[in-house]
Amino acid sequence: MTTTTSVMRSEIAEQPEALRATLDTLLPLMPEIAALGRETRQVLFIARGSSDNAAVYGSYLLQAHSGRLATLASPSIATTYGAKVDLSGVLAVAISQSGRTEEIVDTMAWAADCGARTVGITNGEDSPLTRAADVALVTSAGTELAVPATKTYTTQLAALAVLALGLGADLETADLQAVPEAVEQVLAQPGDAADAIADALVGVQGAVVSGRGMAFSTALEAALKLKEACYLHAMGLSYADLLHGPIAVVDRATPAILTAANSGPTLDQTVALAERVTAAGAPAFGIGGGSALAGACDLAVPMPDLPEWLAPIGLIVPAQLITERLARRLGYNPDAPRGLGKVTQTS
Amino acid sequence: MTTTTSVMRSEIAEQPEALRATLDTLLPLMPEIAALGRETRQVLFIARGSSDNAAVYGSYLLQAHSGRLATLASPSIATTYGAKVDLSGVLAVAISQSGRTEEIVDTMAWAADCGARTVGITNGEDSPLTRAADVALVTSAGTELAVPATKTYTTQLAALAVLALGLGADLETADLQAVPEAVEQVLAQPGDAADAIADALVGVQGAVVSGRGMAFSTALEAALKLKEACYLHAMGLSYADLLHGPIAVVDRATPAILTAANSGPTLDQTVALAERVTAAGAPAFGIGGGSALAGACDLAVPMPDLPEWLAPIGLIVPAQLITERLARRLGYNPDAPRGLGKVTQTS
Repeated sequence: MTTTTSVMRSEIAEQPEALRATLDTLLPLMPEIAALGRETRQVLFIARGSSDNAAVYGSYLLQAHSGRLATLASPSIATTYGAKVDLSGVLAVAISQSGRTEEIVDTMAWAADCGARTVGITNGEDSPLTRAADVALVTSAGTELAVPATKTYTTQLAALAVLALGLGADLETADLQAVPEAVEQVLAQPGDAADAIADALVGVQGAVVSGRGMAFSTALEAALKLKEACYLHAMGLSYADLLHGPIAVVDRATPAILTAANSGPTLDQTVALAERVTAAGAPAFGIGGGSALAGACDLAVPMPDLPEWLAPIGLIVPAQLITERLARRLGYNPDAPRGLGKVTQTS
Repeated sequence: MTTTTSVMRSEIAEQPEALRATLDTLLPLMPEIAALGRETRQVLFIARGSSDNAAVYGSYLLQAHSGRLATLASPSIATTYGAKVDLSGVLAVAISQSGRTEEIVDTMAWAADCGARTVGITNGEDSPLTRAADVALVTSAGTELAVPATKTYTTQLAALAVLALGLGADLETADLQAVPEAVEQVLAQPGDAADAIADALVGVQGAVVSGRGMAFSTALEAALKLKEACYLHAMGLSYADLLHGPIAVVDRATPAILTAANSGPTLDQTVALAERVTAAGAPAFGIGGGSALAGACDLAVPMPDLPEWLAPIGLIVPAQLITERLARRLGYNPDAPRGLGKVTQTS
């Protein structure tokens, strides 16, 4: 057992403050977002890595609550194929923590050339993305030093929630304003369950992480954290995709981590999935999902009540804590995984 | 070493004939597709599992060559959230091998309710999907008995190529008509390299499969085959997503399978990825990519020359052969993986 802490752990703890500062900055921009919304009919997200997982959240949020089609772009259509696509009526939303990943900056420029209006979501205040976007939503996460994104990720989710509100989603701003306090509660609660899940993952070769709807983004992001910081073969899968094949990989040696809001339309299905996983002889670990999911899992991290559309901002936090602890237990430095730099260039 | 063969192996061999029959049936429908194209501006794919991997191919193909935005739907927006989304001007293309997966049939009906025109791509001639679609593209794969999709998958790709031609892509029908013969060549060539790759995967806990652009679909489908039939923790990743984090999981114990067309805009990047993988001490196995990719890999399966836009129909075939052999080497029945039925209901 290692006792050293990490920069990643400190940055996880900074999230309530980062979220508050981000909402203070971005909520006043809702009229500008609304103006873009009047000129466009649908949203196209441009992102990679953790930002792509944020885009998955944005895609579900906008489609479930704003009546707009919102899907993910394939940047290589722009950067590798150099193809011209008709994007009139499209609001292209590029997400990049640094605001300087060339592939993302270039793809947003391509989208504008193809007729799209543009929004840039980034933590890089003075960055190429900020300068090029019609509207820049600059998050206030402060400097993030650890390579695995934590506070830059949750503030991206907050920016996407502001985007949804600005585009006329049938949701309450007051609920979003209550999120920083809920994340504070997650961080203040005893960490026993998260610690026990991290300890149970020591020595495991692979794991499956699953969630449905809004929480699918959490599953993808949790799997990415475990892959990049713990070198764990973690697969982030949607509920349906898990049933369509990879359920075969779940067995005694392959635990499943399942996540859901405490209530809402995806909870029953996630509980049923936990029951299926344990019936297959695999350990099931829950994050959120209230007493129903906890009852179906071997171990579960409780979560404060958040509306389903905001739950992903909280649900990822225990996954970050599990990742950070597991990395240290495995003897890795969570702040600087091998093979990764802070700004990834993939153009 | 086991010597028994399987139904899956026979069905792999039936692909040239299935592709020929499918093209004979579908190419005459191009005028009907063109008529739908005149009423719509963009494409939205609705699919799960192997069909979702086919949709990824369709998405790159249409965007790179027809000037239309083509992205993937999230079926749970329809089935779990019951949300109303504006789909006027959208051509919804639902893909389902059986044509009776309720989630896909229901999501296509939802798309029509939201204002979309619809195409159904299925091997189920008399199926709910065929009956509900504005235009049905019924593949002629014949009955597929093995649970892992092989000939129903490649004929879906052929149907998507017909769709692209019908929607006015800047491509040649004659090139598509030459594909069955190319697949015949893949099947006729000595299987040494594919066999050696399968043998090298015995005992491996995890693997990464990567490809870029059109070939990203091949990476996803190859990973799904290995997961469902060999219980291998195989991750299908795009080139960029691999660099954005999971490159950290590649090490001596985690081989990478890389795939690309013999020429075209993604080849150089795939070769560079192979070099990066081997530099990290991991074995690299190639499928296609000509002599450049073969030279950068430990083992590689050669492929006949196919234009880049059609290469994925051929590239998946060695991956199918590797999966089938590896399953038998591991003592599994490739025809009937545990936990999977032929028609997956996920609604």
